[in-house]
Amino acid sequence: MKAISIGLLGLGTVGSGVIKIIENHQDKLMHQVGCPIQVKKVLVKDVNKERDVEINPAILTDQVNEIINDPEIDVIIEVMGGVENTKDYMLQAIQNKKHIVTANKDLMAVHGGELLTAASENGCDLFYEASVAGGIPIIRSLVDGLSSDRINKLMGIVNGTTNYILTKMTEEGLAYEDVLKEAQALGFAEANPASDVDGLDAARKMVILATLGFSMKVDLDDVKTTGITMVTEEDLHYANRLGYTMKLLGIADRDGDKVEVSVQPTLLPKTHPLSSVQNEYNAVYVYGEAVGETMFYGPGAGSLPTATSIVSDLVAVVKNMRLGINGSYAVAPQFAKNLKDSEEIYSKYFLRIHAKDEVGVFAEITSVFTQHGVSFEKILQLPVKEKGLAEIVVVTHKASLKSFEEIFMQLRDLDAIKDIKSSYRVEGSANA
Amino acid sequence: MKAISIGLLGLGTVGSGVIKIIENHQDKLMHQVGCPIQVKKVLVKDVNKERDVEINPAILTDQVNEIINDPEIDVIIEVMGGVENTKDYMLQAIQNKKHIVTANKDLMAVHGGELLTAASENGCDLFYEASVAGGIPIIRSLVDGLSSDRINKLMGIVNGTTNYILTKMTEEGLAYEDVLKEAQALGFAEANPASDVDGLDAARKMVILATLGFSMKVDLDDVKTTGITMVTEEDLHYANRLGYTMKLLGIADRDGDKVEVSVQPTLLPKTHPLSSVQNEYNAVYVYGEAVGETMFYGPGAGSLPTATSIVSDLVAVVKNMRLGINGSYAVAPQFAKNLKDSEEIYSKYFLRIHAKDEVGVFAEITSVFTQHGVSFEKILQLPVKEKGLAEIVVVTHKASLKSFEEIFMQLRDLDAIKDIKSSYRVEGSANA
Repeated sequence: MKAISIGLLGLGTVGSGVIKIIENHQDKLMHQVGCPIQVKKVLVKDVNKERDVEINPAILTDQVNEIINDPEIDVIIEVMGGVENTKDYMLQAIQNKKHIVTANKDLMAVHGGELLTAASENGCDLFYEASVAGGIPIIRSLVDGLSSDRINKLMGIVNGTTNYILTKMTEEGLAYEDVLKEAQALGFAEANPASDVDGLDAARKMVILATLGFSMKVDLDDVKTTGITMVTEEDLHYANRLGYTMKLLGIADRDGDKVEVSVQPTLLPKTHPLSSVQNEYNAVYVYGEAVGETMFYGPGAGSLPTATSIVSDLVAVVKNMRLGINGSYAVAPQFAKNLKDSEEIYSKYFLRIHAKDEVGVFAEITSVFTQHGVSFEKILQLPVKEKGLAEIVVVTHKASLKSFEEIFMQLRDLDAIKDIKSSYRVEGSANA
Repeated sequence: MKAISIGLLGLGTVGSGVIKIIENHQDKLMHQVGCPIQVKKVLVKDVNKERDVEINPAILTDQVNEIINDPEIDVIIEVMGGVENTKDYMLQAIQNKKHIVTANKDLMAVHGGELLTAASENGCDLFYEASVAGGIPIIRSLVDGLSSDRINKLMGIVNGTTNYILTKMTEEGLAYEDVLKEAQALGFAEANPASDVDGLDAARKMVILATLGFSMKVDLDDVKTTGITMVTEEDLHYANRLGYTMKLLGIADRDGDKVEVSVQPTLLPKTHPLSSVQNEYNAVYVYGEAVGETMFYGPGAGSLPTATSIVSDLVAVVKNMRLGINGSYAVAPQFAKNLKDSEEIYSKYFLRIHAKDEVGVFAEITSVFTQHGVSFEKILQLPVKEKGLAEIVVVTHKASLKSFEEIFMQLRDLDAIKDIKSSYRVEGSANA
């Protein structure tokens, strides 16, 4: 039976993993799809560079057109990254009736809708399981496994670097900067970690998850994003003391027809299933109207885990080729975008304040919350080393984002308050 | 567009959930499949009985043939239970070219292979996501999401009743019998709980998971099964003290070409992802050669969660109908059955022994283990209230099942040992 020919764009960590899985699992793949799968050409920057993976140098090329215009190539696996150029290559490949498997979250978060439409119009598959949460089959689970349900909430630990950093800060009581350096040394963080630690990487993944989960096109600009660079050991200490774990959480929430999507350091009760997700692991928590609570856990990155998702997508493409049904999979979003206003986004909040240690100050602070109808779930007040200051930590009951922002500004202007050290979103109630 | 007609066999807890989801999520279902879905007939035992769910009494029947022989019915949803009769009905329905969605683990564990073959030969789909772990899309995740990987190990908390009982025993220090009564009163355990507490329900689910995960037909008789009825508060106390949680665990393990499948109360380190699965929740942990550790968590039973899986299967059937590709999904097992012998099944063991509190007894016990080359990871020795006895708790390093069984018999015959109170499998190492 004729082999299926693959063009691989990129031979970095993930590309090498793809080569290895296709080679090592060829028997299993053959059994499933009924024909051999071979990598025909591989795009690299430098054809002469030494590689970790064994590969015939004759199939390497530095010319993308040799791959996307090769009439014998059936499927393009895109693991080169990039957005604008890559989008153009993908569109050209689709015009050439090639199916696409990509791990490129940046591309899919920004141009996913356009690419999926082009693929569908050309009878091509475009699968992107590996773009979110590496080895976890979360896209399939949303699209197929929970297809009958209405998803009301998605919460994701979808960035391994930041989860590693927060886990180590929590476990070892270390400062952000120290753990970041350690993570960089161990290869868990990039030399330039900005897109991870500022939350942008997570925001892109949440765009993909929210668009699928709510069947509504969400854009990157719609995601309120805060990273972890301002998180301190003190914050983690108080979170722990109050029964919470700190996670960089992507939250996509639906009420009726309106949605909100955000990424921010968030306090979760230690008993929440997401709280036990440690180190570089990822997990996506899905709350469906009928199914209730589910969670999907696994490695969020890495060569072989990410390649597992890519090659599983490839298996789906090849099965579709044999059935002649490529391009029939994608379902366009059912709903037009409808975002909640800041009056409609409700959450609990953690606030840590340094205030003057004087009579009446706490009453003054409380009255700001009361004016906005916001009450406290928990309060801690402790002396700080700096003379004459008190450290006040509160967890509020639910408040609208609008109220919270107004409270925040009013507090900042109080003479009695020296500094608002930190504020975080809180999900759920801890027992401690 | 012509509606898809469903015949529903059974209108108990799950059947009512199916009716509700098809009705409440009709818009979402329409958007995905492009046509309405209607329940045309429902098989019940008593057409006059009052129902929790609103249903037109005219579509109720007590004659199964009115459904499986109705030429207008496209898809049969089977939630009536039973094995032999139900199998015959399903085969007849398949002969009549009807697609099947079933939640029946008993049926699939025993006759799954035969039914899948019949369905495939007749161009029919037969989907059974709901048969394992209720609302968790674990079958899809194994078959599609991880299709490119080789699964080396599956561990499942796949019975909610026993997980509820063990959770409560652990949290509240109560005896098995007391928690069972409470669980029965709350509806978490059946009046006759045998198939749950003896492990048979979990064994059936493990047959289904192992067959899919290893692409090898495993039979119910191949699963070594022990239930939770002998678990005591003392065992849970010592497990906790040693850093472990007790779970009724289905374990399917592959080494090279050989597999083992078992269900038994098992000690897991508290840090293991499965250890935090509480109460009636289910989870399946999957270790793939390439992907590494993944876990799928959610409700294992209940009306709407189980119905979510059923209707998601129904969506898949209807999409396939529109593409004309029904019956193409099933892949026959790749490998012939090849089970490990008891010399090849390796595990750590927990043993709790009451022995005479005399000089030389511990050495005598130790020498039995030494003869079989088995050493200890942890030892606790404590006085018991009964005069002259010592309680000895050990966790061994890895031993073959054969060695362990021989050790067990030799220990039982020692004069110095009054009673072997309990023994359990142990997975992984706890730090405590």
